[in-house]
Amino acid sequence: MDVISVIRTKRDRGELSDEQIDWVIDAYTRGTVADEQMSSLAMAILLNGMNRKEIARWTAAMIASGERMDFSSLSRPTADKHSTGGVGDKITLPLAPLVAACGAAVPQLSGRGLGHTGGTLDKLEAIPGWRALLSNAEMLNVLEGVGSVICAAGDGLAPADKKLYALRDVTGTVEAIPLIASSIMSKKIAEGTGSLVLDVKVGTGAFMKNLDDARELASTMVELGTDSGVRTAALLTDMSTPLGLTAGNALEVRESVEVLAGGGPADVVELTLALAREMLDAAGLKDADPAKALADGSAMDVWRRMITAQGGDPDAELPVARERHVVTAPSSGVLTRLDAYDVGVAAWRLGAGRARKEDVVQAGAGVELHAKPGDSVEAGAPLMTLHTDTPERFEYALQSVEGAFDIAPAGKDFSATPIVLDRIG
Amino acid sequence: MDVISVIRTKRDRGELSDEQIDWVIDAYTRGTVADEQMSSLAMAILLNGMNRKEIARWTAAMIASGERMDFSSLSRPTADKHSTGGVGDKITLPLAPLVAACGAAVPQLSGRGLGHTGGTLDKLEAIPGWRALLSNAEMLNVLEGVGSVICAAGDGLAPADKKLYALRDVTGTVEAIPLIASSIMSKKIAEGTGSLVLDVKVGTGAFMKNLDDARELASTMVELGTDSGVRTAALLTDMSTPLGLTAGNALEVRESVEVLAGGGPADVVELTLALAREMLDAAGLKDADPAKALADGSAMDVWRRMITAQGGDPDAELPVARERHVVTAPSSGVLTRLDAYDVGVAAWRLGAGRARKEDVVQAGAGVELHAKPGDSVEAGAPLMTLHTDTPERFEYALQSVEGAFDIAPAGKDFSATPIVLDRIG
Repeated sequence: MDVISVIRTKRDRGELSDEQIDWVIDAYTRGTVADEQMSSLAMAILLNGMNRKEIARWTAAMIASGERMDFSSLSRPTADKHSTGGVGDKITLPLAPLVAACGAAVPQLSGRGLGHTGGTLDKLEAIPGWRALLSNAEMLNVLEGVGSVICAAGDGLAPADKKLYALRDVTGTVEAIPLIASSIMSKKIAEGTGSLVLDVKVGTGAFMKNLDDARELASTMVELGTDSGVRTAALLTDMSTPLGLTAGNALEVRESVEVLAGGGPADVVELTLALAREMLDAAGLKDADPAKALADGSAMDVWRRMITAQGGDPDAELPVARERHVVTAPSSGVLTRLDAYDVGVAAWRLGAGRARKEDVVQAGAGVELHAKPGDSVEAGAPLMTLHTDTPERFEYALQSVEGAFDIAPAGKDFSATPIVLDRIG
Repeated sequence: MDVISVIRTKRDRGELSDEQIDWVIDAYTRGTVADEQMSSLAMAILLNGMNRKEIARWTAAMIASGERMDFSSLSRPTADKHSTGGVGDKITLPLAPLVAACGAAVPQLSGRGLGHTGGTLDKLEAIPGWRALLSNAEMLNVLEGVGSVICAAGDGLAPADKKLYALRDVTGTVEAIPLIASSIMSKKIAEGTGSLVLDVKVGTGAFMKNLDDARELASTMVELGTDSGVRTAALLTDMSTPLGLTAGNALEVRESVEVLAGGGPADVVELTLALAREMLDAAGLKDADPAKALADGSAMDVWRRMITAQGGDPDAELPVARERHVVTAPSSGVLTRLDAYDVGVAAWRLGAGRARKEDVVQAGAGVELHAKPGDSVEAGAPLMTLHTDTPERFEYALQSVEGAFDIAPAGKDFSATPIVLDRIG
């Protein structure tokens, strides 16, 4: 087996054999296939694709590169959720304790943000004392004792994926559906969850800009999960406008707590409940009532115990940015568009996200929205508030929100995009 | 300018701008663009192509990465030849002195062999004392004093190409016509020749397996040369069967001297004369008569002076391999096929070529043919003789020649492929 013949097979539109895939993933993980060879293969895969058999084997080889976790000792069925990432996507925060309150065990191995989309761990780290890094034993302990845990994925799961993802990030080969699908699913299958619901985002603020690509990614992942014995379903959900009224770490924690308290923005509540029902169905808990668990405070109770179990104080004051800048509506009418990508970039520039892995995020930075598409706005009234500790960032952030919205004259027809666009599984 | 945007442009089938090309070649040469980024871009170029404008700029950027030579001080017009490489392709050896004997200055900056095709420098190094490495001043001196010089290309010409070629070799990205054309032409244009004839090989023993690809490569290179002020033409020539009756270093030197002495195999003489006429036409020496220069010994005279000027002894005994193995014809009839690739691989395995750059070649190793397609053969009579210093290699070489030939019953129609298949320029 040599790497040039593997590269040539895919370059010339052939099908990679099981042996070729196993060999190249293992050799790359061990370092005998070099980065420049793997990136050439990744570009060939991006441009020439992989079929289902190849994607399944590629995923299996990445799983085999590391350890597998085992949740079979838990007293409840496990249910996991993965979002492909969006702007204002704080759903994991209310969702995990909500589904746990309904009887499932919810292990959320999460990541940090890079670029314009936020990271769940960055958000929770806005809570004083909260720790993202748990040992496997600690994680299982919180999961069994509380019902849900949100923590950093260990280094042992799919190390081939870790190495390949870092390479794709610097070689223009991120946007390959077979590689995105196998990257996500190798970690989820290695993690050992019994069921999984995928939230595949579609729109300007998401990786997938159109419904066709999102559908292809979703069905590829659902098949990979199902074939590996994980009950898997996917919702395709709108990411053309930010979720809720906040994008930024502490801002989103505050909004999540509002949802757990029975309030919060309608779109966040709707998506949280839709995903909760999917997770509970997949976990075999079809009689559970997540709306009731939100209303009666049981989800909030799990939240408080989960934060406490990971060293956080659920009653602590959340950090607030030192400076604010209000963006007002230039005219009166109806807000017909508020672009997720532009708002995400603004929040990132204000300090909520990082440009490089080693950057530190500002807990209080971000964008607070005062109107969403469909709302009436008055000329001169606040449209959004920008938050940052470093006011020299306002100008750069404002450049991103300048073209982020459209206001139409009052009375113009406006039909909102539904949150859930499709379901696959 | 950042490398991801350059990669994305080509990945998404866009046209690279002049600025993108200049930047990426310069940054790669300086090391700020990493190998894994350049290989990803090379694969995108291989799969999505480059248009003529892009190829011309890519070539210019590679030329600009190093020094340019200047032959304008010479008293005669310069004429250069480049072959894309084949099996038994010793044509440079008789051709350079022949064209010099007809009045042109012939600077042949040549390479070593890698894989199944031989290298001109490896062949000449079979001559005791001969030196491939000359300083620029020595090279100009031999060129002015003798009329032709065959030596190694200096490190100063197109260093970007040197680095990129080594990368392509290990990343499955060699077979991209825009990259092959710009690699060859950047060195030839930087070398400063006034005219250039390209011998683009077609067939099993060549890079280009079919006439369409060879034609595309040839016309791309002719345009690049012409646009840079080099009078350029290309012959497409057959490489389905080895050239002449020898493949191997000393074996080919011996055959070349036979041609210079007025003898030698008909196909080698025909191709040498055809390329000589092209070079002389391109150099503006239309009245020269290369057939006469072969017949009257003036080409042989230049050869002897050229070898002597580079430290070699033209009268020295050439090395002979220690061991021989004769392959006999399994049946009587007409030899209808003798595969260039298989014979080239056999010569390589016998020790005439190298698998890695640091390998040492055997001067005496190679394959000597006793029949060519169209010849009658008798069962049990010698078909070819294998030469090596290391007889343990015979078995591996024999595996390659086993399926290398077809013998048809006597009387079967056989039409030989012409040597020169087409001309572009």
